[in-house]
This record gives sequence, C-alpha cells and structure tokens, in this order.
Amino acid sequence: MSPEEAVTGADGSGAPVTVADRAACAALDAADPLSDQRALFHLPDGVIYLDGNSLGPVPHAVPERLAAVVRDEWGDGLIRSWNAAGWIEYPARVGAQLAPLIGAAPDEVLAADSTSVNLFKLLVGGLRLRPERRVILSEASNFPSDLYMAQGITHLLGDGYELRTVDAEELTDALNDDVAVLMLTHVNYQTGRMHDMAALTAAAHDAGAITLWDLAHSVGAVPLDLAGCNADLAVGCGYKYLNGGPGAPAFVYVRRAHQQDIEQPLTGWLGHAEPFAFGSEYRPAPGMARFQCGTPPVLAFAALEAALTLWEDVDLRALRAKSVALCELFIARVEADCAGHGLRLVSPREPALRGSQVCFAHPEGFPIMQALIARGVIGDFRQPDILRFGFAPLYLRYTDISDAVDVLRDILDTRAWDQPEFKARAAVT
Amino acid sequence: MSPEEAVTGADGSGAPVTVADRAACAALDAADPLSDQRALFHLPDGVIYLDGNSLGPVPHAVPERLAAVVRDEWGDGLIRSWNAAGWIEYPARVGAQLAPLIGAAPDEVLAADSTSVNLFKLLVGGLRLRPERRVILSEASNFPSDLYMAQGITHLLGDGYELRTVDAEELTDALNDDVAVLMLTHVNYQTGRMHDMAALTAAAHDAGAITLWDLAHSVGAVPLDLAGCNADLAVGCGYKYLNGGPGAPAFVYVRRAHQQDIEQPLTGWLGHAEPFAFGSEYRPAPGMARFQCGTPPVLAFAALEAALTLWEDVDLRALRAKSVALCELFIARVEADCAGHGLRLVSPREPALRGSQVCFAHPEGFPIMQALIARGVIGDFRQPDILRFGFAPLYLRYTDISDAVDVLRDILDTRAWDQPEFKARAAVT
Repeated sequence: MSPEEAVTGADGSGAPVTVADRAACAALDAADPLSDQRALFHLPDGVIYLDGNSLGPVPHAVPERLAAVVRDEWGDGLIRSWNAAGWIEYPARVGAQLAPLIGAAPDEVLAADSTSVNLFKLLVGGLRLRPERRVILSEASNFPSDLYMAQGITHLLGDGYELRTVDAEELTDALNDDVAVLMLTHVNYQTGRMHDMAALTAAAHDAGAITLWDLAHSVGAVPLDLAGCNADLAVGCGYKYLNGGPGAPAFVYVRRAHQQDIEQPLTGWLGHAEPFAFGSEYRPAPGMARFQCGTPPVLAFAALEAALTLWEDVDLRALRAKSVALCELFIARVEADCAGHGLRLVSPREPALRGSQVCFAHPEGFPIMQALIARGVIGDFRQPDILRFGFAPLYLRYTDISDAVDVLRDILDTRAWDQPEFKARAAVT
Repeated sequence: MSPEEAVTGADGSGAPVTVADRAACAALDAADPLSDQRALFHLPDGVIYLDGNSLGPVPHAVPERLAAVVRDEWGDGLIRSWNAAGWIEYPARVGAQLAPLIGAAPDEVLAADSTSVNLFKLLVGGLRLRPERRVILSEASNFPSDLYMAQGITHLLGDGYELRTVDAEELTDALNDDVAVLMLTHVNYQTGRMHDMAALTAAAHDAGAITLWDLAHSVGAVPLDLAGCNADLAVGCGYKYLNGGPGAPAFVYVRRAHQQDIEQPLTGWLGHAEPFAFGSEYRPAPGMARFQCGTPPVLAFAALEAALTLWEDVDLRALRAKSVALCELFIARVEADCAGHGLRLVSPREPALRGSQVCFAHPEGFPIMQALIARGVIGDFRQPDILRFGFAPLYLRYTDISDAVDVLRDILDTRAWDQPEFKARAAVT
C-alpha cells in the first residue's frame, strides 16, 4: 500500500475511502524513504511537533557548529575571522545553499536581515522597475506583515502609491496596467492554500507587472521552481521548514535579468561595490551583494548554515509526496475520528492547492489548541478560530499523525479543553 | 602614582613628561579598579587585542548561555519559548539593559536589526518630525554607511531631500532652517575624535533641527548622557565595545517626548500595536515597540544579553578614566619609542576630544598593521593610511600597551613589515 492509497483509496476521487490505522501508519514509516532524516533532529520526548511551519526544531548539526564558531572563530580568531573564517561570505554562501531549494541559480539568492526588511528592499526595488505605475496588488488574506510593509512604503512614498488588496480569486482580473508589483505569499500562513506561481506570474507579466513572492511557508515544504515560473523577485524565511533557529536570517531572490537594473533603498555599506574603500558616495555592488545592508549576524548565520546542510541529501519530490500523504492522512483521520465535534476544514481539500499545513476552524479553537499543547501535541492557533498544524516531512512519522489525532479526539470527546487554564491568552500563541 | 600622572606628568600641560615603563605599567595594573573584569573574557594566548572597537572578544558568560538557549529553550521549548522563555521580550529587555550605558530610561531604548537599518528608521522618522525641511546635515568624514543610508533615503524620497556634508568645524554654522536632522557619529570611526554632544545638540535645537547620534564607537567606551544632552534620537552597535558577538543586534533610542509622534517606515508586524491580532491595517505600537520590524534573531540576542550582564558592575567613570589613561600611555610610548619612523598622530591629542581609540597615519600603514597582527598585536587598518587601535578598558592592561608598543617599535626598527606577505590585501582588514 502506498502512502496515497492508504489515505485516499484507489478510486482516484480523493475522498478518504480507507483511513490508515496505527498499524498501517507504522508500515508506512518503515517504508518511508525520508525516515533517516528524523535522527538528525533533536525532538523532545513526549512531543509531537506539528509547528515546524512556525519554528523548526534543532538539527543536531547546529549546537556543535555554533559552539565551534563561538569558541574558535569568534573566541580565538576574533576580528580576523571576517576573512579567515569566511564570515564576510555568509550572505552569499548561505544564499547559494538555498538556491536549489527554490529553483534558482546560486548567484540569484542572498541571505540577510529579516523577511520583512527584505520585503521592503524588493518591494521598493520592484516599484522602481515600473516607475510609471503606482499600485502594489496583493490579496486581503496575505500575511499581515507583508501588507503592513507595503502600507509603510505607500505612506512613505506618497505620490499616488497604493496597496490594493483583493480576494485570491480576483487577482487575475485585478492585474491591470496600474499594477507595478504583484506581491503574494505562495502558501497562505493561515489556510495553507497554495497559489499557482507559474500561472499568476504569467498573468502578471501579461499585464506588465513584476512579481514578488513570499516563500516563508513554502521553502523546505514544497518544491519550488522560481526559474521555471519566470518569477521576478522573492523573499523567504530561515526559521520555519529550514530549521535555522528562531529569527534566523531571511533571504532575497532576484532573477538574474533584473539584477543590474534593480535598486534597493537600504543602501548600507555591505551592499557597496567596495565597502572597505570607505568612499563617501554609495555605489551598489554588482549582483546580489547590493541586497546586503549592515553587518551580518554571524552566530545566526552559523546556525542556519549548519541547518541547511541537511537538505543536501533530500529528494524534494519525495519530500512533497510525503508532505501530501501526511496532510491527507491527518485530514482523513480527523474527519473520521473527530466527526460531530464541529471541526471544519479550512485548508483546501485538493492536495495540489495546499502547502504542507492543514487548518481546521472550531469556535473553541484557542482552548483546544492549548489542551493539545499540554498533552504534547504542538500546533498553533491563529485568529479568529483556527487550529493550525504544520507537517514537516523530514522528522514527522505517519504514526505521529495517528497518535496526534488520537489525542485530539480524546480532548474533544472528554471536553478536556474546557478548563480555565486553557482559556487564558498569552502574548504569542 | 596615578594613571594620569604616570603618563602625562603632574605639570597639567598634557605633554608626556614621564612615560611609564613596563614596571610602572605593572604597578598601574595592580592598582586598577577594573582589573577583575579581564577574567570574564576569553582572550587567546599570545594576543594583545586592540580591536575591540571593531569586534569585542567573547565574554565567558556567552558560550554557556548560548548553548543553554539552543538546548533548552529552542531544543526542548520549541515554539513555546516565545512566551515561556521570554523571547518575544528580547528587544525591550536588552534595550533596558543598554539604557544605563547611554544615559537613557529603560523605555527609551530598543534592540533590533542592524545599525544601518535602525539608522534608516530614525532618519526617516526624524525627517517626518520636521516635514517642512529637506536637509540631512552630517559631516564629510562620518562613517560611510551612515552617509550611504542617508543617500538612499534622499534618492528614495526625491522631492528636494538632500544630504549635506561639511567638515566638523563647520557644523554649527551649517545649522540653518533648511536642516531637518543633524546626523552625526559621536566618536569618529577613523580618528576617534569625539563630538561635544551637548553643545551640538543645543545648536541643532536652536536651529529647529532634530539630532540623530550614531553611538557605535561610543557605547561601552565613554560615558554617555543622552538625557542630559537633550538628544532626540540615537542608534548604536552591539558587537564593538559591548562584546555581543559578530553582527549582534543594534539598538535605537528615541527621547520619550518624541515617541508618540515619530513614525518609522519599516512597519513590520512586531512593531504593530497588536501583532498577534493579525489585523490587515498597520497601527504602530505605543512607545519603542514600534521600532521592531521582523522576528528578532533570538540566538544573537541571547549572546548580547549575556554579554551585557558584565556591565552591571562597571563604574563608567572608572571606565573612562582607564580609557583615557590607556590611550595617553599608548600615545606617549609610541611617540617616545617609535620616534623617527614617520608615524603621525591622527587622533586628537586632547583626551576630552577623543573616544577610546588612537590612530596613527603612516605611508606603509597597511603592511605595518599586518606585521603587528602576525606578531599578535591586533588592531586594524583604515583607508588610506591609518593604523587604528582601540582600547577597551574592561580587558586591557597597562602592560599590554607597553608590550604592544615594544612590538611596534621592533617591527619599525627592523622593517619587518617590508615583506610581500604583509602587503597582500584581503577583503576585510
């Protein structure tokens, strides 16, 4: 039985005609071509971690490498390590590591700053590539920080600049010749719905617009082919499916054809053509180096670089197949085992339209998630009523999904969530 | 003999009438009230580190803390640590740690991003506080990245915005009613010359301008009193005299009186009044929190926070007294022992006009510095001909200065610098 058959049966309808029980899940684990990867992570006992889409766990490669960087490179090498240990090359080197994960060439990617700061660079850069246009087009349900950054830019620039948001289905129709940049998050943070990058990029280009993709919930979760899609610009995050550590450096992608023309507004010294000449006039470095601004956070880069070494051996098609199978299994098991408890699937039912996460809405979503976390099943809650579960194929097992749904069912059956301790809201959930 | 007497004699002229020999330096070390601090740092054998103004060494508190954060907080706590381990509070908490070092209140400082990115936030914010004005005034010899960031802003905004640079002596005269922001680095990166913050801030205010101080080469090196100077805005760096690690988070200061009015353009989600409400319209958080943008780099923050604990016991007046004494000793010894070798003091001779660094120009400055580094005396070279030496009073001894000058003298006497290996230039020096 293949993973897909186990979940959806063989009739091709996509409906869950056979739902794998725990024994069937164990068999799937035994046959999993990615099963060796799990041993490369620190996963605490008693935890089923379904929140790697928010913060990936610690790869064992990280603590050792980080300690060596502190002890040997910073400690003994001191200032000399900028050259001797190659610190100054971190942004380009980690960018090149990321390139195969997004379907880009090594010299089209640079790691730097946060996703939001990188979005600022590329959004302004994209607007300047279409100086006669004034509209940033996005969707209303985009990740709020992306919308906020765009609002900051339109407010800063004035002069008729505008952020226009529409529903996802209206995007193509909204692509008119006012639109300078189509800014979208490839996989929606809340629902897991995945855009058709190739089709939307083509539609944007037909309308004369530049595309800017936020890959925060895609990279390391689904195969990406920026080159094949003719995507113009992209940003992404290092701390979700890439497991680079909390607040890890983010990245920027610029299609080679744009690299000589694009200007970015955060013109710090490390983006200068000759940063150590200390000239008084800014002159952008050729290629991606101009997307650097200040001094790179070396310790954070060391962790991210070590985490990225894991991807060298990963077949992204196998990753995607397992991701789909895990998500399908979860949906099928929740709908079968937790029926009648008011959970409503928010994510697309069709795997091709979904990233590597599954969300269910429930009026008591917040305390249910707190009860799950208390029992070691860690997902997260998103306003207003969404239980969000991420499925990272590198370290999750089919049996983890089975066990997680057992816990969820028990919590719902016993109303274990209906406790004051689970209803108190903390700052971050 | 006090440190000052040892170096400058008792005639009050400031001229080096008595130059301390090594035995006198050892006596000064024995009497040094800061001498206990040195044991808190990892300093490699055979190195005299005169580059802590560029990258501070590893405080012993850092590796242990960083390992615990990776193992316990990230590893076991996973996503829960944003609340449970207080990660989400890092920017405000580290800001509060920094406040006493710059003469600010805890709620006037926030740690985030890089110095250059923070400069962008405050420069745009400062311009908006004076919307009828168009000029950023700075000095021609400011740190290039500061000038570059200002150039990026004037280019971005157009509309007559202008960066105007003059020599330091001309700043006061240049403060007219065109000037929106006076942007200065308090201690010059190249010469160590220190501005009179109180006087220049007063002059700027008389002209109706906002002041923006870059404290990169000041914080942890000289006492600062932003409140007493009525300074409006400031940025600073975590990895120089604060020893927070390469590329450590930087910080922003905004005088409380401006906090409700100032807008910053990098409007990311963590600067939102309710970041986890995920509303679609940006609304700035009250106070300093609005100067956050993306997700904070937790590992880098953990290192910086641990490094900053050292300052809790440091008397900043004692720090400044030792800094002046170390610099005076170095100047006196170089001028006495290396006379006739063409070294020219570039830093101000008057201690009150100098930060905690001393620079000498020499036509062969580059290979001389490489020869020094090869002998374990680590300073750095700055274009075009400057040997730059930083004096961090927490871990340097008077005998280190004596020994460093002995090495310099030997290199000059023997022309040891005149080797091809010392003339090859690397990317960063």
